[in-house]
Amino acid sequence: MMNKEFFMREALKEALKSYSINEVPIGCVIVKDGEIIARAHNNREQNKDPLGHAELIAIKNAAKHLGGWRLVGCDMYVTLEPCIMCSGAIMDSRIENLYIGAIDDKRGCVASYLPILKDRMIPHNVNYEYIQTISPYIIKRFFRHLRRLKKESKNKI
Amino acid sequence: MMNKEFFMREALKEALKSYSINEVPIGCVIVKDGEIIARAHNNREQNKDPLGHAELIAIKNAAKHLGGWRLVGCDMYVTLEPCIMCSGAIMDSRIENLYIGAIDDKRGCVASYLPILKDRMIPHNVNYEYIQTISPYIIKRFFRHLRRLKKESKNKI
Repeated sequence: MMNKEFFMREALKEALKSYSINEVPIGCVIVKDGEIIARAHNNREQNKDPLGHAELIAIKNAAKHLGGWRLVGCDMYVTLEPCIMCSGAIMDSRIENLYIGAIDDKRGCVASYLPILKDRMIPHNVNYEYIQTISPYIIKRFFRHLRRLKKESKNKI
Repeated sequence: MMNKEFFMREALKEALKSYSINEVPIGCVIVKDGEIIARAHNNREQNKDPLGHAELIAIKNAAKHLGGWRLVGCDMYVTLEPCIMCSGAIMDSRIENLYIGAIDDKRGCVASYLPILKDRMIPHNVNYEYIQTISPYIIKRFFRHLRRLKKESKNKI
């Protein structure tokens, strides 16, 4: 049986796919009965799609895999704390356990910036747990890389 | 120039498409420069898609139409107050004005049940306005219809 760290590393592999195409590096896998049934990486810029967050793509793919929109008994591993849209989709699609690689204190809407999934008023409960990973480092490095790219392109003009 | 009531009626036409296929009747249009650039109706059950809410489908289509994920200068007309996921997507995709046909005090996450779009902490501001329509009547009638269908199918067994 694979452990939580294994699945989080798989989510990190997805995040690195985003990195390699200059997208904010966020990756995600969905697991049912110890098996990865969906995986995705953020590709919002490349696909020009407001729904291009890793979590939403993985949720859509998991539903296709299971043949229904309720992802009962599924766990999600995601490298960064989800935004409002993704937190809503996670709750609404009945994801049971959510494992988060890094707190996002600027945008995270599970339990930090806007603690939506912590709110007792939400209609479905999602268990969540933060698992310490290298994802904050990857994200910081990515934004440094992005700033450098911007500076270089300015210097060229 | 068409007025707000015209566009809300167009959203209601979309809601009726959901009704006719036994889906919760919610419809939506997205308008830019006085023109409808995307329209959609809820089809979550039929498409077995957790992202099958009218608002998300319309946002995806509007982005395709505009060739980018930021829906700057766009207005959304939706027959029922959006849920967490859709409220997040509306904010994140930079929809400017949101017109809502009916308050959803059980699930609405704009300004009623969970007032997320009212929260000053959110990163992008969305103006919202409630426009009184017949959509609460349509939704109530739909659920009565659904209960009758369930009762009939039980009686058959």
